[in-house]
Amino acid sequence: MSPSPSPASSPASSPSLASASLLRRLSRHIDRHQDEFVQTLREWVAVESDSIQPMPRLRQELLRMMALAADRLRCLGASVEAVDVGSQKLPDGDALPMPPVLLAELGSDPQKATVCFYGHLDVQPARQEDGWLADPYALTEVDGKLYGRGATDNKGPVLAWINAVGAFRALQEDLPVNIKFIVEGMEEAGSPALEELIRREKDRFFSGVDYIVISDNLWISQRKPALIYGTRGNSYFTVEVKCRDQDFHSGTFGGILNEPMADLVALLGSLVDASGRILVPGIYDHVAPVTDEEREMYEAIDLDLEEYRSSSRVKKFLFDTKEEVLMHLWRYPSLSIHGVEGAFDKPGAKTVIPGRVTGKFSIRLVPHMNLPVVERQVKQHLQHIFSKRNSSNQMTVSMVLGLHPWVADVRENQYRAARRAIKTVFGTEPDMIRDGSTIPIAKIFQDVIQKSVLMLPLGAVDDGEHSQNEKINRWNYIEGSKLFAAFFLEMAKLHE
Amino acid sequence: MSPSPSPASSPASSPSLASASLLRRLSRHIDRHQDEFVQTLREWVAVESDSIQPMPRLRQELLRMMALAADRLRCLGASVEAVDVGSQKLPDGDALPMPPVLLAELGSDPQKATVCFYGHLDVQPARQEDGWLADPYALTEVDGKLYGRGATDNKGPVLAWINAVGAFRALQEDLPVNIKFIVEGMEEAGSPALEELIRREKDRFFSGVDYIVISDNLWISQRKPALIYGTRGNSYFTVEVKCRDQDFHSGTFGGILNEPMADLVALLGSLVDASGRILVPGIYDHVAPVTDEEREMYEAIDLDLEEYRSSSRVKKFLFDTKEEVLMHLWRYPSLSIHGVEGAFDKPGAKTVIPGRVTGKFSIRLVPHMNLPVVERQVKQHLQHIFSKRNSSNQMTVSMVLGLHPWVADVRENQYRAARRAIKTVFGTEPDMIRDGSTIPIAKIFQDVIQKSVLMLPLGAVDDGEHSQNEKINRWNYIEGSKLFAAFFLEMAKLHE
Repeated sequence: MSPSPSPASSPASSPSLASASLLRRLSRHIDRHQDEFVQTLREWVAVESDSIQPMPRLRQELLRMMALAADRLRCLGASVEAVDVGSQKLPDGDALPMPPVLLAELGSDPQKATVCFYGHLDVQPARQEDGWLADPYALTEVDGKLYGRGATDNKGPVLAWINAVGAFRALQEDLPVNIKFIVEGMEEAGSPALEELIRREKDRFFSGVDYIVISDNLWISQRKPALIYGTRGNSYFTVEVKCRDQDFHSGTFGGILNEPMADLVALLGSLVDASGRILVPGIYDHVAPVTDEEREMYEAIDLDLEEYRSSSRVKKFLFDTKEEVLMHLWRYPSLSIHGVEGAFDKPGAKTVIPGRVTGKFSIRLVPHMNLPVVERQVKQHLQHIFSKRNSSNQMTVSMVLGLHPWVADVRENQYRAARRAIKTVFGTEPDMIRDGSTIPIAKIFQDVIQKSVLMLPLGAVDDGEHSQNEKINRWNYIEGSKLFAAFFLEMAKLHE
Repeated sequence: MSPSPSPASSPASSPSLASASLLRRLSRHIDRHQDEFVQTLREWVAVESDSIQPMPRLRQELLRMMALAADRLRCLGASVEAVDVGSQKLPDGDALPMPPVLLAELGSDPQKATVCFYGHLDVQPARQEDGWLADPYALTEVDGKLYGRGATDNKGPVLAWINAVGAFRALQEDLPVNIKFIVEGMEEAGSPALEELIRREKDRFFSGVDYIVISDNLWISQRKPALIYGTRGNSYFTVEVKCRDQDFHSGTFGGILNEPMADLVALLGSLVDASGRILVPGIYDHVAPVTDEEREMYEAIDLDLEEYRSSSRVKKFLFDTKEEVLMHLWRYPSLSIHGVEGAFDKPGAKTVIPGRVTGKFSIRLVPHMNLPVVERQVKQHLQHIFSKRNSSNQMTVSMVLGLHPWVADVRENQYRAARRAIKTVFGTEPDMIRDGSTIPIAKIFQDVIQKSVLMLPLGAVDDGEHSQNEKINRWNYIEGSKLFAAFFLEMAKLHE
């Protein structure tokens, strides 16, 4: 099927030339309106849509964020449904309402392919005093970098998709594909209600969907685009050690107690060695072996390890070759200790023996690790370590989050379309990469909708998602908007 | 030297009998006036003299408290000097004025011993909504218990001393010793200016002082009095492990970093074993060996270990006998891990690799441990553990607080006098105990003034200092006032 003729593209001699000419006009439009696009991003970043901290005020901000996005989608001409997904149950037993999930549609031409874009508008917590150079909720541009919480994860990419669609609308060009949007506000909190919603909407909203695109991660370079064909899963654990609910004074009780922090530190210290190897017995049993074909793909990746290290501001990685580093980020599991709740965490010198403490750690999972098996292995290991201590305290281990890993077949149609769009807009082949982090939605779409899932990232490697001074480059944001426009055109060509 | 003859005691046939008769009259006076004494305590408790929260309103309350006390001391006939000790520098750079230290004198007979009493009139914060049964600043009597913030720590004991002196004055009896008072208002905030003041006043106010008495802690029993002859010191350490200032996302960096939390957990886990033994090499080298005499003192202490355990709401202590438990609280060092600053410490499941974390722990010190030696041992140990990990991170260990332990010779004169006074007033030998926490003032007096320091507590074990529903029993307050009167008489006998 060819893209619908439009007044501007009709004089062209072939669909391909017409498409090239249209893309040039779309790109010019995007360039000319870039300050407006940045201003919209500024307005979106200004909303403290933090889904992690379970506070009513922040939930209000999330609601406001979703309403802003719904308005913007309606301005594009989309029909928008804000689906209530109920409440989130908190560990303390309370419940907090969750923001609605937006389901939006634009076009339903049965002759066109239907591409569904997934994005999220919630963010990680951020406070200026944690080391931000400016208010994290005031988008600040310095040397072409747009600093702000959510700028790259994931408000910028959601807007880039909207910008691309908006460019077609502004030029009064038919969209070459039908577009659907699913936009949520609880991704950082693990998307508690999303899978159920997707299952429920499988035969309704998702019934005509041919392809799913996610743009919620980063390139592996500052300048070279990438396509992502796999993500790691995650199993997040808490281990609580309790002596009593109240704290103790270390003067009046120090020396006669099994102190919960000593137990906890021993438990956390038993998880991973100094070389990064996870010490939980059996944990590597189901990790897929490396194939020759896979090894070649890693060798082809354009990564200057020294530049990567230095731009990450890290003195040294655990491994010395590009292949080892990338494999340990993408196709091997890793274990990180995140912190301790309930101990003394403020500045100063408080002489407290915390009475009850909770350690937090997670294991990034890879094919073909299995969540229930990992959960059992971790619990057995910690119980073994704890019982050896003969402590009178009480230990409780919980897996509070379990998310599967995902991997796609890079020979699928939309991977080829995306490669061509990248070639057109950026003049280069993309790096074919994975993402070491967890985007559970990819695996859910793959399992439930059973359609091809593509990850088409816009952000540069140094964007610092989840970190202080998160940013997206103006160049990535604007060229990324063009990339999405080019991608729509390439997807249409697949159906020619 | 004999107590000065007085009309009432003169008919007695010996100084000892005269003293016994005088004490009976003093005790009767104290019993008869106990409601007045409780009323004065009520007036003092009503002043919210909180030195912890750096608020101007509370500093005004502290000034009012010190003025009330100065008035009361002047009514006794004392000469009182309110010494300005300047301002307290707050962490945020602001400064707040500190309340004056009162230096008061009553009598300067060169033939009498001079006893200096140290006390403080500031209190820990208290709010009724934290779990107090009544307004913490309205002294409330229930079943002979006088509930109120500061009732036992330290307003009650300061007033008991004043009540004892006042009884001599009311009966127009000469004081058998010269009395000095040093009363401060910043003890709970760490007495920032006190050591300097004591050093400055060493050859002036303190020049004639023979003995120093502190009554700022508790018995180990609800009914049996105690003498305290030692307190532990404290060395507070921070150990920072830094990869970079910013945090990382555990998805995008997990697997290729020496993660600071893994290093820190290994460092903290190397400090103390599951039996509470400190693993820093050499740390026990200077701990005084237990003598037979000491062992007997521990055996004589009246402690129901099971009741102590259950009232502490602890399932099990590390040791099974009274002697082991008390020795590990008082005369052996202990190490407590307080917490971690810079890691994820909130509720929820944040997938962060903290970039820079600071662990906090402290070691309670006992004679004859030496602060610089302990500091060196801890630093060397942590450097050794860290270097074995071959981590690319940066580790910094600091001792941020160093307070010496204190121990007195229980054969000193005033210990003997206090034991006799206790025997006379309470009809029992005291428990000879130590305090596991750190009261730096004792060691400062010992080092600077170089005179005998005695801790003569009045409060019962369940008084709940620093806690909700702090109280002093009416019985302890009134019998304690008699005890101080008896102590003055016994001190005079020492000089007969």
